[in-house]
Amino acid sequence: MNNFNFYNPVKILFGKGKISEISENIPKNANILITYGGGSIKKNGVLMQVKTALKGFSYTEFGGIEPNPAFETLMKAVEIVKDKEIDFLLAVGGGSVIDGTKFIAAASKYRGDCAYEICSKQTLVTEAMPLATILTLPATGSEMNPNAVVTRRETKEKFAFYSPLVMPQFSVLDPETTYSLPKRQLANGVVDAFVHVLEQYLTYDTNSPVQDSMAEGILRTLIIEGEKALAVDRPNYENRANIMWAATMALNGMLSCGVVTDWSTHKIGHELTALHGVDHAVSLAIVWPAVIENVREDRKEKLIQYAKNVWNISEENDSLTIDILIKRTNEFFTSLGIKSHLSDFNISADDVDVIVKRFENRDSDTLGNLFDVKTKDLRSILMSRL
Amino acid sequence: MNNFNFYNPVKILFGKGKISEISENIPKNANILITYGGGSIKKNGVLMQVKTALKGFSYTEFGGIEPNPAFETLMKAVEIVKDKEIDFLLAVGGGSVIDGTKFIAAASKYRGDCAYEICSKQTLVTEAMPLATILTLPATGSEMNPNAVVTRRETKEKFAFYSPLVMPQFSVLDPETTYSLPKRQLANGVVDAFVHVLEQYLTYDTNSPVQDSMAEGILRTLIIEGEKALAVDRPNYENRANIMWAATMALNGMLSCGVVTDWSTHKIGHELTALHGVDHAVSLAIVWPAVIENVREDRKEKLIQYAKNVWNISEENDSLTIDILIKRTNEFFTSLGIKSHLSDFNISADDVDVIVKRFENRDSDTLGNLFDVKTKDLRSILMSRL
Repeated sequence: MNNFNFYNPVKILFGKGKISEISENIPKNANILITYGGGSIKKNGVLMQVKTALKGFSYTEFGGIEPNPAFETLMKAVEIVKDKEIDFLLAVGGGSVIDGTKFIAAASKYRGDCAYEICSKQTLVTEAMPLATILTLPATGSEMNPNAVVTRRETKEKFAFYSPLVMPQFSVLDPETTYSLPKRQLANGVVDAFVHVLEQYLTYDTNSPVQDSMAEGILRTLIIEGEKALAVDRPNYENRANIMWAATMALNGMLSCGVVTDWSTHKIGHELTALHGVDHAVSLAIVWPAVIENVREDRKEKLIQYAKNVWNISEENDSLTIDILIKRTNEFFTSLGIKSHLSDFNISADDVDVIVKRFENRDSDTLGNLFDVKTKDLRSILMSRL
Repeated sequence: MNNFNFYNPVKILFGKGKISEISENIPKNANILITYGGGSIKKNGVLMQVKTALKGFSYTEFGGIEPNPAFETLMKAVEIVKDKEIDFLLAVGGGSVIDGTKFIAAASKYRGDCAYEICSKQTLVTEAMPLATILTLPATGSEMNPNAVVTRRETKEKFAFYSPLVMPQFSVLDPETTYSLPKRQLANGVVDAFVHVLEQYLTYDTNSPVQDSMAEGILRTLIIEGEKALAVDRPNYENRANIMWAATMALNGMLSCGVVTDWSTHKIGHELTALHGVDHAVSLAIVWPAVIENVREDRKEKLIQYAKNVWNISEENDSLTIDILIKRTNEFFTSLGIKSHLSDFNISADDVDVIVKRFENRDSDTLGNLFDVKTKDLRSILMSRL
């Protein structure tokens, strides 16, 4: 096992009815900005539950945070924070709303020229506003981690930043808030969480059996519960609860303790989203099989373990086992209704060139954290997914 | 899955050499009390490493915290805290030192008549000193949880208390600090952690597959790595690292999210320790098989799951499966050198009477958190382990 630090002070309030407990967890006299997305929380009653729970508190609303939250949108919220002397942020939504709210928390206290430097130059966040979240879409894990991804509309670029200062004070995970999700978003969430686990688990063996078992358990849960969720017309509480907790556990730092992580699928996928508007999870489903084809020899040991412990595949021939596991994983994604080829989104060889250039300009030999997914292989990786 | 809250802000610094990082995590100008046990940390060099890392800090030492830390001993430390205006506690040792230090942290700020009320009357802890730990014996999980158990020598009673205020600010887990442990302590630690998992996992199905997989992974790891650790003469880093992380994960709150927990084996075992000085882990190994015999019908579903996923037992006959799993678990304990009968410690039927009386006086129908281990069954539970 490698050395590691782990720190995650996010308080989780999990289960039906838990929104009612938020008032006990927000400082008295807080002046709150409630942030949300396109307004689905108005239709499904979640916003009303939040307002009921906040009786007696002073709050302002900021809606309209889009999927892949835009810097330009978020800076409008920063203005409101300053104008109204807001001192607590409450994000109600999925990963985009939460990531965006993390950016608002940091940008509101940022003292440099342009707050986007937090993303583009990875400027250290030295101060941030307190925030909390009410999760309505299990997917990104942002509700229990220090990460955020923000898009700059002007340049069509998507960058991640990280700061323990933007970890939520608390996050409410009430599975019932997911009942009104369209199937597409539910499927995206399952695939997103699934690939989060793969990025941390499917690399090299560091002799970390506790972490490996946990990863395999989350993957098996996402397969079983993901397929169940998509197959039924009426949402089932236990099913949604398991997907929700699996997605949070997939990216709260526990799985990456002592292991080596990759993240090249995410790095490549971000470009498909930034340039072509492909849903984040879909971008991962497109890229992942090609990345794994590319490292199938180097990562053979862990791939065989994944095949056996997650998919129950045990061919005698290693190469065949790897063929089957890539096929089965891909079939799982498509069974959820995810399209997984570039051509499904009219992305051509010329578009691939643009992406390859972007990475070449960034002057790094590798695409993720590991030596084995190389920038020079990016063209063939993407071309194989045309 | 049941509703739950989860909150664990303990920062973990894991791996070789991590003691050197403590100075970055302790407030500048802290006036520290270093607490420890019988002095093994002097012989194995851990105390020297700690002192080197604390260069420039002001500190006092308090040694002599015994296994099953005694209220009477700990109150001496509380006096030193007050006399010397100590403002930070650094526990260096195993669960007893850490539990004792948690009590010192709470007792130093206690305003009632007698600080033991924190344990005996479960008086709410409203204030506590900050503390951190350097773990040298993987076992209790105290390094990453809010629990402590303290013994009152005067009355031979052992009580647990709980407060988020006594969670360590950080805990260092360096597997190399365990190299000088006697095999008995190592074995005790593995069994303690193993039963911690069983108390949370082996109850009733709440449809929580992520938590179940995690529990099963920790159990399998403790079996494999525990037997390995005891079989070799020279300690192996990876082996000790896996035991250490498994023991911490066994009781940091993650496994009990959304499930129902028991803890009757612990409650009964505490009396064997308090009255007869039986090692804590040994007391669990004595009691556990009898508790499980007692609930074998009620908990059949989860017992079969445990048999299959942890021990790979899959007899067609459920009753035989349960027989075998109890036997296998018991054999695992004894293979580590743990004695698991009352007679091994000269505890007689008369002694059993004393324990039964104690529980009857406490006026509760059940021994743990669940309905199925009843106070009225205690005599037969203990008599079966004579």
